[in-house]
Amino acid sequence: MKNVHQSITDYISNTIRTIPDFPKKGIQFKDITTLLQDKRALELTSYMLAQPFRNRSVDFVVGLESRGFLFGTNLAQDLNAGFVPVRKPGKLPSKTLSEMYALEYGEDHVEIHQDAIFKGAKVIIHDDLIATGGTASAASKLIKRLGGEIVGYSFIIELSFLNGRDQLVQNVPIESIVIE
Amino acid sequence: MKNVHQSITDYISNTIRTIPDFPKKGIQFKDITTLLQDKRALELTSYMLAQPFRNRSVDFVVGLESRGFLFGTNLAQDLNAGFVPVRKPGKLPSKTLSEMYALEYGEDHVEIHQDAIFKGAKVIIHDDLIATGGTASAASKLIKRLGGEIVGYSFIIELSFLNGRDQLVQNVPIESIVIE
Repeated sequence: MKNVHQSITDYISNTIRTIPDFPKKGIQFKDITTLLQDKRALELTSYMLAQPFRNRSVDFVVGLESRGFLFGTNLAQDLNAGFVPVRKPGKLPSKTLSEMYALEYGEDHVEIHQDAIFKGAKVIIHDDLIATGGTASAASKLIKRLGGEIVGYSFIIELSFLNGRDQLVQNVPIESIVIE
Repeated sequence: MKNVHQSITDYISNTIRTIPDFPKKGIQFKDITTLLQDKRALELTSYMLAQPFRNRSVDFVVGLESRGFLFGTNLAQDLNAGFVPVRKPGKLPSKTLSEMYALEYGEDHVEIHQDAIFKGAKVIIHDDLIATGGTASAASKLIKRLGGEIVGYSFIIELSFLNGRDQLVQNVPIESIVIE
């Protein structure tokens, strides 16, 4: 089974392309559009995202705007859970909670609907990529403010040299398909 | 079967809430976050989106940023197709084509990667909602410029009083789950 998983991971990894200096100089951007357009990679990615959390009790998958929307609803369905979007400011139409996170220069915010989850809900946070962990950490704070319990994190790609996992809730599984 | 489909449509429709005056006065915003958080509605929506196109030959589902990302990859998998995002300007990292569409005041653009689809590819365009049809029409032009063939349109909600379907490629199925 380990070898099967390794070949799947290799297949997925090979469909992701790196674009140098995007969105700005010095950043090696991980472009998953080449993964998405490959129907086999699309299916294998869905499979691999759900795999570690199967048979777990999960109430909601929280997906981070906007690339966390791509596999978030899929993951939710595979885990028999609902889906909740965390969005950039001003996008959610009903009453929201907001959390700040630091950027290289300055700061930004993410929002969640106040009625997005119920108290005690078991939540998995999903995004396409974890870098410094700023957005996933801000999303974690939003979930906790609403009384939710984070039971896992799910990413396609983890840039491990940026130590993003140190910013997340500890003692909870952090599952990434491709680790660089 | 018709009655089954009607009950499913009613169930989905009842999970969508209307927020008055968002994002500005006079607009009745269709909020699908309440659909997404209901795991049954989530599954039924995926089922209903795929239903009209099953057994059709489809190469790519094109999803429009950002709510078209929510069900787009799911629909692609159900139809054994790849997924291609159409995004707002500056978001796609590789070489793009751009198309303008009119807003109430002014204009905006959408972009697609130049290598997103192959010539002759059969494409379904998906978004959560069709209003005036401006974005879906601009996306259609992008697909045609890349040599693709549009074989269908897929929406969760259609605001039929805005006549958006008149802006789309004619003689192609336009499938909406909830029509208002």
